[in-house]
Amino acid sequence: MSETLPKRPRVVTFGEGMIRLTPPRNERLERTISLDLSPGGAELNTAVTLACLGVDATWVSRLPDNGAGRYLARQSRAHGVDISHVSWVDEDEGRMGLYFLEEGTDPRPSSVLYDRQNSAFARLKPGEFDWAEIFKDADAFHISGITPAVSETARTESLTAIQEANKASVPVFFDLNYRSKLWSESDAKQCFMELAPLVDVMFASRGGLGTFFGIEGDHETVMAAARQKLGIAACVMSRKRGKKSRSLKLSGMALGPSGHMHQTDWTSIEVVDRLGGGDAFAGGFIAGYIEDPTNLQRALELGLAASALKHTLVGDFLVATRAEIEAAVLATDGGVLQR
Amino acid sequence: MSETLPKRPRVVTFGEGMIRLTPPRNERLERTISLDLSPGGAELNTAVTLACLGVDATWVSRLPDNGAGRYLARQSRAHGVDISHVSWVDEDEGRMGLYFLEEGTDPRPSSVLYDRQNSAFARLKPGEFDWAEIFKDADAFHISGITPAVSETARTESLTAIQEANKASVPVFFDLNYRSKLWSESDAKQCFMELAPLVDVMFASRGGLGTFFGIEGDHETVMAAARQKLGIAACVMSRKRGKKSRSLKLSGMALGPSGHMHQTDWTSIEVVDRLGGGDAFAGGFIAGYIEDPTNLQRALELGLAASALKHTLVGDFLVATRAEIEAAVLATDGGVLQR
Amino acid sequence: MSETLPKRPRVVTFGEGMIRLTPPRNERLERTISLDLSPGGAELNTAVTLACLGVDATWVSRLPDNGAGRYLARQSRAHGVDISHVSWVDEDEGRMGLYFLEEGTDPRPSSVLYDRQNSAFARLKPGEFDWAEIFKDADAFHISGITPAVSETARTESLTAIQEANKASVPVFFDLNYRSKLWSESDAKQCFMELAPLVDVMFASRGGLGTFFGIEGDHETVMAAARQKLGIAACVMSRKRGKKSRSLKLSGMALGPSGHMHQTDWTSIEVVDRLGGGDAFAGGFIAGYIEDPTNLQRALELGLAASALKHTLVGDFLVATRAEIEAAVLATDGGVLQR
Amino acid sequence: MSETLPKRPRVVTFGEGMIRLTPPRNERLERTISLDLSPGGAELNTAVTLACLGVDATWVSRLPDNGAGRYLARQSRAHGVDISHVSWVDEDEGRMGLYFLEEGTDPRPSSVLYDRQNSAFARLKPGEFDWAEIFKDADAFHISGITPAVSETARTESLTAIQEANKASVPVFFDLNYRSKLWSESDAKQCFMELAPLVDVMFASRGGLGTFFGIEGDHETVMAAARQKLGIAACVMSRKRGKKSRSLKLSGMALGPSGHMHQTDWTSIEVVDRLGGGDAFAGGFIAGYIEDPTNLQRALELGLAASALKHTLVGDFLVATRAEIEAAVLATDGGVLQR
Amino acid sequence: MSETLPKRPRVVTFGEGMIRLTPPRNERLERTISLDLSPGGAELNTAVTLACLGVDATWVSRLPDNGAGRYLARQSRAHGVDISHVSWVDEDEGRMGLYFLEEGTDPRPSSVLYDRQNSAFARLKPGEFDWAEIFKDADAFHISGITPAVSETARTESLTAIQEANKASVPVFFDLNYRSKLWSESDAKQCFMELAPLVDVMFASRGGLGTFFGIEGDHETVMAAARQKLGIAACVMSRKRGKKSRSLKLSGMALGPSGHMHQTDWTSIEVVDRLGGGDAFAGGFIAGYIEDPTNLQRALELGLAASALKHTLVGDFLVATRAEIEAAVLATDGGVLQR
Amino acid sequence: MSETLPKRPRVVTFGEGMIRLTPPRNERLERTISLDLSPGGAELNTAVTLACLGVDATWVSRLPDNGAGRYLARQSRAHGVDISHVSWVDEDEGRMGLYFLEEGTDPRPSSVLYDRQNSAFARLKPGEFDWAEIFKDADAFHISGITPAVSETARTESLTAIQEANKASVPVFFDLNYRSKLWSESDAKQCFMELAPLVDVMFASRGGLGTFFGIEGDHETVMAAARQKLGIAACVMSRKRGKKSRSLKLSGMALGPSGHMHQTDWTSIEVVDRLGGGDAFAGGFIAGYIEDPTNLQRALELGLAASALKHTLVGDFLVATRAEIEAAVLATDGGVLQR
Repeated sequence: MSETLPKRPRVVTFGEGMIRLTPPRNERLERTISLDLSPGGAELNTAVTLACLGVDATWVSRLPDNGAGRYLARQSRAHGVDISHVSWVDEDEGRMGLYFLEEGTDPRPSSVLYDRQNSAFARLKPGEFDWAEIFKDADAFHISGITPAVSETARTESLTAIQEANKASVPVFFDLNYRSKLWSESDAKQCFMELAPLVDVMFASRGGLGTFFGIEGDHETVMAAARQKLGIAACVMSRKRGKKSRSLKLSGMALGPSGHMHQTDWTSIEVVDRLGGGDAFAGGFIAGYIEDPTNLQRALELGLAASALKHTLVGDFLVATRAEIEAAVLATDGGVLQR
Repeated sequence: MSETLPKRPRVVTFGEGMIRLTPPRNERLERTISLDLSPGGAELNTAVTLACLGVDATWVSRLPDNGAGRYLARQSRAHGVDISHVSWVDEDEGRMGLYFLEEGTDPRPSSVLYDRQNSAFARLKPGEFDWAEIFKDADAFHISGITPAVSETARTESLTAIQEANKASVPVFFDLNYRSKLWSESDAKQCFMELAPLVDVMFASRGGLGTFFGIEGDHETVMAAARQKLGIAACVMSRKRGKKSRSLKLSGMALGPSGHMHQTDWTSIEVVDRLGGGDAFAGGFIAGYIEDPTNLQRALELGLAASALKHTLVGDFLVATRAEIEAAVLATDGGVLQR
Repeated sequence: MSETLPKRPRVVTFGEGMIRLTPPRNERLERTISLDLSPGGAELNTAVTLACLGVDATWVSRLPDNGAGRYLARQSRAHGVDISHVSWVDEDEGRMGLYFLEEGTDPRPSSVLYDRQNSAFARLKPGEFDWAEIFKDADAFHISGITPAVSETARTESLTAIQEANKASVPVFFDLNYRSKLWSESDAKQCFMELAPLVDVMFASRGGLGTFFGIEGDHETVMAAARQKLGIAACVMSRKRGKKSRSLKLSGMALGPSGHMHQTDWTSIEVVDRLGGGDAFAGGFIAGYIEDPTNLQRALELGLAASALKHTLVGDFLVATRAEIEAAVLATDGGVLQR
Repeated sequence: MSETLPKRPRVVTFGEGMIRLTPPRNERLERTISLDLSPGGAELNTAVTLACLGVDATWVSRLPDNGAGRYLARQSRAHGVDISHVSWVDEDEGRMGLYFLEEGTDPRPSSVLYDRQNSAFARLKPGEFDWAEIFKDADAFHISGITPAVSETARTESLTAIQEANKASVPVFFDLNYRSKLWSESDAKQCFMELAPLVDVMFASRGGLGTFFGIEGDHETVMAAARQKLGIAACVMSRKRGKKSRSLKLSGMALGPSGHMHQTDWTSIEVVDRLGGGDAFAGGFIAGYIEDPTNLQRALELGLAASALKHTLVGDFLVATRAEIEAAVLATDGGVLQR
Repeated sequence: MSETLPKRPRVVTFGEGMIRLTPPRNERLERTISLDLSPGGAELNTAVTLACLGVDATWVSRLPDNGAGRYLARQSRAHGVDISHVSWVDEDEGRMGLYFLEEGTDPRPSSVLYDRQNSAFARLKPGEFDWAEIFKDADAFHISGITPAVSETARTESLTAIQEANKASVPVFFDLNYRSKLWSESDAKQCFMELAPLVDVMFASRGGLGTFFGIEGDHETVMAAARQKLGIAACVMSRKRGKKSRSLKLSGMALGPSGHMHQTDWTSIEVVDRLGGGDAFAGGFIAGYIEDPTNLQRALELGLAASALKHTLVGDFLVATRAEIEAAVLATDGGVLQR
Repeated sequence: MSETLPKRPRVVTFGEGMIRLTPPRNERLERTISLDLSPGGAELNTAVTLACLGVDATWVSRLPDNGAGRYLARQSRAHGVDISHVSWVDEDEGRMGLYFLEEGTDPRPSSVLYDRQNSAFARLKPGEFDWAEIFKDADAFHISGITPAVSETARTESLTAIQEANKASVPVFFDLNYRSKLWSESDAKQCFMELAPLVDVMFASRGGLGTFFGIEGDHETVMAAARQKLGIAACVMSRKRGKKSRSLKLSGMALGPSGHMHQTDWTSIEVVDRLGGGDAFAGGFIAGYIEDPTNLQRALELGLAASALKHTLVGDFLVATRAEIEAAVLATDGGVLQR
């Protein structure tokens, strides 16, 4: 909450924001009488984690100028994210994207009903953002594989943004996220192949590297192959263990130019809400990386702590101070009450 | 609740259903953390009132086969409406229409943010409904001016349905409802001019008769002129007095073939929720009318009682037994607790 | 809250306690998904007001020894009522009486669905209470016309209790309350005629005096006639003005041995919950009366203040300190915020 | 939700419905301030699962014509159950049965406080239901051991219904459910012995077969003995493993005329609400059985999937589409979120 | 929400922020089971209204670096207020000020229980704020009479801040607010006499001018006298009519250098929450004034509209867009629903 | 709930009461919109458990005479605790202590933000309590290590109370509780060393015995050493196993004059709320001990059962009947639903 600190790193993220609508108490959508709201969006979630860690986080997006759009703006500001580069459009130029989440417990899977078509973001127009201005003084740019999937113009603008980041020598972080409800694997593949050479650090799962880049093997193997084949500086993975809906173990791996395979311990998590967990991991990693790109272990641990804490909170967003995240890095034992 | 009664009148209504999303406690959408759900849709609301009054009410519509669509179906069944003629479509063929309601108190007006584009209903296809089958044994057909406003095909199907009702000798009730956010006054005018000659009973406000049919004058004058000029059997109006958001007075007027101007007393209402009040009025009137078309006074009083009771309940739907509605017709004094 | 005060007056009340179940937000019982609980019972409500005013209030009743019975006991203790003379019985010997309240707004009346048959109280057995012990040091006994209506044994025990109070020279206060759902007017009449001669102070409405004692006329007339004809020391009335469900004006009248007709001003009330208002009036009056039986004006004003404050609170019970009730006696203007 | 499907199987169930009243958040009844409502009743729960699976499910019962009775009717209709054969009676002829549920977590057991005496159902009169009419076109009849336990007339009517089903060649399914708070083991035994010969398929636990029919041994043994000794076509069991209040493993076994012992895998369940789980199992099994009586494995798997999903939802009722239940049959891994 | 607008006016406010804790549904504090939170503080409230109107509003204050302090910061950011000049202190250096609000209805007054002693703000240290830096580019400074009442150092810093504003030629707005629970009338008088000569525009009630400056007479007289005697450029008043807790009429008056007495119509308000209404009035007035100091009528109308809208919302803060406030200025009739 | 029992044991406890404020659903304080209230305080919690077990439990404390103080009094009375010896003071003489609890799940620890400075209790004055009167007929006195930590005068009064108990031959129970936020280890040590010789039964953890008395070793060793070195009659321990925030195993150990080491089995607990668990253990143990000081095993088992049940309930207080606690002693298997 160090709002008065003189000089802080600055990270830009780009993507769609949505309102999540969740029936309380594991209820089904068809039977609920109320819905809990929460804000979300992969790159916005990452920006929120960055803000928790004291980074100036700028989220670039496009919102309708109505109550739904203002909801998202208000939540973003509340969580400390800079939205001065959001493009506000008239309601007629696009709606607010929504999705309904039904939270399951075993053996009923959680399920998402997307209602995001014709969103203000999906209908963005090329040239709407002044990237040169946006990237001034930026220390990093982050985007996920969801943004180019949203629409044709979003895909074009994703490429433009990355190219502009390259031009401005701003390191590009890319999360190899795939949403099957938005586009086909072959479309995604073509896009990811185009973007990969422009990326500095890639967050990816083993499955994603296989599907989109044909890289197969165990974790160590695919990470090394990804670095070589895709020409990225670093490849980062978060890994999960456990099949229960309310508990899991989490760890992280990273491979950078040093060739050393960094790895964290496994953290046990009692899950309150999974969504946004991967985005918090990215946020924590980026915050560590831009402080010291040579210390991938530190970046991984910040990512893991941020992600683990995010899992204990309702909604996509992390709420934690830097001190709490640092404490979680060190903690060997959860559940302790200090008084 | 007399589900076992042998023979009941049957009324068909046709229109879109939507989910209303309302921030509790007069909150603004941009600041709320939850939304209350309620079902609605002008013709569905009317069907619900008819069901309360012991009429077999069939609502014809089109819903997406997902949790949101099932929400509306479940609510309709719960309130006793027959949905066996609803057309279920794949999610890709249209979403569930939504709207956000912010409830104001003076001097802040309530406001509605529609999010109903590309709904399953709006995308209905001509010929999707078997009207001849639907109108078998029907005693009335009801539709409002909202249905043709929803989309081009909805407009076409509205005309078709009314023509088929005419063909089947089913009396047509039409509520001259205008939604400025859906179409222009000139488009509405053209449509309403086309439909009016096919209508038997029209619910209309003085303003509506002026705007769409150029009929001006005091209440008595315009109702008489409407009957003459539009060739309808009866013209029915509900009237409001009072400018406060939480209280109002309501009365009804009707002019039928007898030439006698029927009128009710003014009922004082302490408003909990205004939406659906007009649709309940229509439902009550239709129920009375089909029982005895020569007794417009009785029909008006059922309409007024149903509408007044609806105003005391959250949501668009009336919940009341026939006995309760009859009691409200007789009541001269509200607020009494019997025990 | 002056629990440490050395010597306090003591009042005994006798009657049934029930759990009220109310759908929130004016909802209908048939559509609600939750019910708010609150405790109630005419004589218990009066005991609670007495406790607010610093009187040792003992409520004599009969409760089932299960969670529902313990709910009522817990609430009574919380509000400062002494329940050491409550008779606890096995679940098999009677259930907890319930009632469902639907809160209406104009023109929909509030309605009560009683579910109180076979209650532990209704099934009380003669001789179960040691009245001599109970009335030791008591300054007053209060009972309403509801208690004898509950069951045959309750009626017998009501008479016994009043007779024992007479024997112990404890003044008897009686509220001429009639519940048409519990017994017929003729049964009530017979009972009330039997009890009246044993009563010292009667709370009665003009209608009640007419129905049960054949006393007709304007307020002043009937109160004087009641004193004469029934042989009571004082007759007390609370009066209401206004037909709106959410606002009303309240005042009180009393006629005692002095022959002077005491009367209060009219207090304007913005109603949150009407139930228990009359019982709070009785409680306030009794508290004043036992402090100074010659000052009926003071007793009336405490009764009116207690009743008015009760109307601003959810549930049958008053929550207020003596200081707040005294302040309400003096207040000429509500709605002021002091800070 | 396939309301428009031309021809569907039809199943009749018979039993009492009740309103469950549950303090939220594991609270004790004596301290709660609100109660959550949910509908329930063994045979009604089974009918709901059947409706989920696309079966025309008719629930035969008796309800008071008041808000509490209408609550149950509304919930039943909402979940797709046909209530046209429910008998509505005046409030004076019986109340709505209630029960209070306190949800425990280890080591505090959940506990039920029944308040169901003198219910409308318990007071049913012989000859009130036209069974010949009810069983027309029926494919199955289902009843549990709770129904005959409710009252003397309920026991008589249970026998009548089963005999009429036999007469109409409608297969009878019986769930050997025992409620110790309603009758003694010896009364239950006498009744079950009388009914067993009239039953086609019996759902039973090993304990139940021992207690009521003197059949002892391991699972396989008792199922075989039950078939032989009781003359039933099939014996079906659901089994539980685990002693934790919030997690359990479930599987099913069935033995039919083929002599082959069918068995499912164990499904891991993270429990939200256990009540109604057995009834959902019966519903799933019956739906499968009437589609193909020779494929007990399929019926078992539908039963297990329906029951497992029910455990993840608040209330006695299952809410799931046929597609979701089929997916649960196939799933080897819960907790997966598809997006 | 025009975050991207190039050049906006800038206003600084200075004062304490507090967390308001309110029992829901008119409940008493002693009986509630939950408390609703909302942020507040006179000058913060004014800053929020300014932000609604598109002004860059900087709130200067002091907060403890814990969850309670972060609550207030988060809410301020969410509502668009700049908190970069808030001083964060360790928990040991002061707590978060709280107050409990009991919302009454007639005749029970709302009541406030302050728990604000030893707050971080009260314990501020002289010289903690860099006023020269803070007032750079500022168009106005606003402070109320509450800030100097909080503590000795707060009083000193209030004077310092006003002197620094004078020095920087930033016009000073002062709201003559008196809190009897914080200091005596004589202390307040001495302080206000000291500050008045340094003030440009004073918001005052007739009573306040009488109490603290000995200015008596009707509204016009005292406003003229205040200008002369206190040497202020303008005197502004908001006036209330009506004694009901839930409805009131509001208007504004202002007298500036032109000598013309400006006055608005009376606006009818259905009150949801009164707190913060006066602060919103100040915010609206200031926003209008700094846009055009010669048009006091316009400033008054913005103030009145902002205040009226604030009364329709829960909490101290206004939530409205500039367009909505402008519309409220023009509105002649509330309660209209546009759709 | 046996309020009418003739003769019951009586226990006095002494300490501060506080209001706990908890954001619902694991939310962070900085983001919550409401707070759940619950009462607490180590010695009050113990008194509540004693009342559950049929003991007359008197809690001696000091409360401000305002809504917050009355909240705590009301809750105490509701749970059956005698508060006739609470000292009520004017608001100016001390506030109500508060604390905010954030409930975590792994790996986020629960955290407490205390806001208890300057409380009415902390500011108690020597000689305020008439201990001779208070200890009349008392069977035990209980105090924890928190009470002397609250303030200088609280420390003095703690010593006084214990000495007076000794004088009155009332056995003293002491819970070696340490709050690092209230005082230093060295201050605590000095105080505990002073109190220990005056104590009869000490509840202590192995860690506490080490820190404050320099007693090291395994459980058996330290308990024996404590008895010898500190001159106490009995040493009692509750032990926990498991590192998960939502599940744990609990057991108890006790060593008395007999020299026999008593020990219970381990009970598995699914945790709803941990706070107050230790205090309930003390309450259960004391209740058993004063019934039969020679049967430590029985006392331990009551303590363990009370503590285990407390963990299944929200808030610091146990709600259970004696019968339920006895049943929990016997239970070998939780989670069973009897119906």
